[in-house]
Amino acid sequence: MPFDTNLRNTSIFLAIFILAFFPSVFHLLLKPFTLPFDLFGAPLAPAKQLLPTCACCPPASCTAADIPQPPTMSFFQKQFSLPSKSRGCYLITDEVTRQLPELKDYKVGILHLFVQHTSCALSMNENWDEEVREDMSDALDRLAPEDRKGNLYRHSAEGLDDMPAHIKSSLMGASVTVPITNGRLNTGTWQGIYYMEFRASKHSRKVVATIQGEKA
Amino acid sequence: MPFDTNLRNTSIFLAIFILAFFPSVFHLLLKPFTLPFDLFGAPLAPAKQLLPTCACCPPASCTAADIPQPPTMSFFQKQFSLPSKSRGCYLITDEVTRQLPELKDYKVGILHLFVQHTSCALSMNENWDEEVREDMSDALDRLAPEDRKGNLYRHSAEGLDDMPAHIKSSLMGASVTVPITNGRLNTGTWQGIYYMEFRASKHSRKVVATIQGEKA
Amino acid sequence: MPFDTNLRNTSIFLAIFILAFFPSVFHLLLKPFTLPFDLFGAPLAPAKQLLPTCACCPPASCTAADIPQPPTMSFFQKQFSLPSKSRGCYLITDEVTRQLPELKDYKVGILHLFVQHTSCALSMNENWDEEVREDMSDALDRLAPEDRKGNLYRHSAEGLDDMPAHIKSSLMGASVTVPITNGRLNTGTWQGIYYMEFRASKHSRKVVATIQGEKA
Repeated sequence: MPFDTNLRNTSIFLAIFILAFFPSVFHLLLKPFTLPFDLFGAPLAPAKQLLPTCACCPPASCTAADIPQPPTMSFFQKQFSLPSKSRGCYLITDEVTRQLPELKDYKVGILHLFVQHTSCALSMNENWDEEVREDMSDALDRLAPEDRKGNLYRHSAEGLDDMPAHIKSSLMGASVTVPITNGRLNTGTWQGIYYMEFRASKHSRKVVATIQGEKA
Repeated sequence: MPFDTNLRNTSIFLAIFILAFFPSVFHLLLKPFTLPFDLFGAPLAPAKQLLPTCACCPPASCTAADIPQPPTMSFFQKQFSLPSKSRGCYLITDEVTRQLPELKDYKVGILHLFVQHTSCALSMNENWDEEVREDMSDALDRLAPEDRKGNLYRHSAEGLDDMPAHIKSSLMGASVTVPITNGRLNTGTWQGIYYMEFRASKHSRKVVATIQGEKA
Repeated sequence: MPFDTNLRNTSIFLAIFILAFFPSVFHLLLKPFTLPFDLFGAPLAPAKQLLPTCACCPPASCTAADIPQPPTMSFFQKQFSLPSKSRGCYLITDEVTRQLPELKDYKVGILHLFVQHTSCALSMNENWDEEVREDMSDALDRLAPEDRKGNLYRHSAEGLDDMPAHIKSSLMGASVTVPITNGRLNTGTWQGIYYMEFRASKHSRKVVATIQGEKA
């Protein structure tokens, strides 16, 4: 009897010792006897039922750096005023990049510039020779001349230069879009952004700049 | 012997009791003896090897609100037809916002409107005086006149107004892009969206609207 | 005594057996006695304190497919050269889609094409009749003629065709934007993408293509 007790105890101890080391053995051995409900009577969901509740969270073994992150898409928007100017074409590439230091955060994207007015325009054009800018203004004057004889336009209440300004603005466009690559406007060597003012008197024009892209 | 058994049993019980409370003690004590493979012979990956398999999942202690969410970027697209019109310029800002109630969901973004035709155009222009719209149509007629003497265009099979319509369409553009700010088109006070029809007879034009941006 | 020992041992065995099956019973029974620090003396954070540290990670029961994914926003950019051409209008829709097999990955989006030059242009126009392309070139020559008498332009050092090319380029635009729907450019039946070369001699023009959209 003492021997029996001793042997039995040792067996129990060994069994517990093994199970303490390898707890999964328990589940393996007992799988055929598993009841379809837990200790409190709630039915056990089959394994695949667990999946739909999956959401984002944290074991300690993972750090933020281990988790694959999707690329950071981003929209940035800023409104600013262009330097006040009268009739003419003005190169504003430097002014635009000065107003938008955020450009350098974008690995790839698009810059959209939009003037909130209908008698000026934005356009891409030659960035070197100032005479190109003067020639552009004159060329547009020939395409949409002032109505000195009063036989061209109905809309004349706001001045001789107003209806031609609307025509030029609509022809050239209120917006330009420029690709962004590795934090810089990806323009060609001789390309610049023109602000074209079509009214004779000085105007201060507001621009809405929207950067859309993938951050570095 | 009975005393011995009793003492030994009590020790075992205490050991198991402690381990049951603090299971990590086991791993602490047994670390030097840890085998480099698990119960079934599969080699154990070193701890840092686990990290590359990190993916998104859920302890119960976390709720969706606890997880930092990236801003919701979204593309929305819808095709619709403009009211059927013959030659002229038409203000469609209200029609566009009526067709796109989704605009109000976007905190910041861009609306892109694109007509799927080559003898009409979209443009930004003055939104107040109807005479500006009439003057615009006439101004474009002067820039791309009909070929009444038959010495201007080769392409004439589709009517006198067809080739001029292609020229005007290409000059003005098939698309406009407008910034979205806090759920509204961020246009200037006097800016509106023009649909410019260049064919003499009525046409129903299809527009593809694409909203891209960050939702509120 | 042997009987007592036997009974006690059996009780212990049963208790351990039950606990081994249902370990959560332990925590249930001992909850009132839980100490506010763990085995090593570190204070236990209250459950809700855990939440701010929530980040993304993995129990084995979840697979990537179980985790709800936000739509995959993506920016793709590629630079390529257009076939070398002299003055004229060229249909490049097929060349563009050939250069951009990535288009088919996008369920909804925008293709932005941008030429990095100021004496050519991109535009949408009629894609069927080659005579439209010839008429377009001629129509633009009338709008921005060469300065044969020397009284139109200041900028003349780079050839008779240079200043007219800048005017045409700025009028027509350096970029086109086309909606993408279900992996295809969503253009109308008769719409094509024109590359318009305004210089008399052959030039090889570089295009920056940016696709932005939601992947399928």
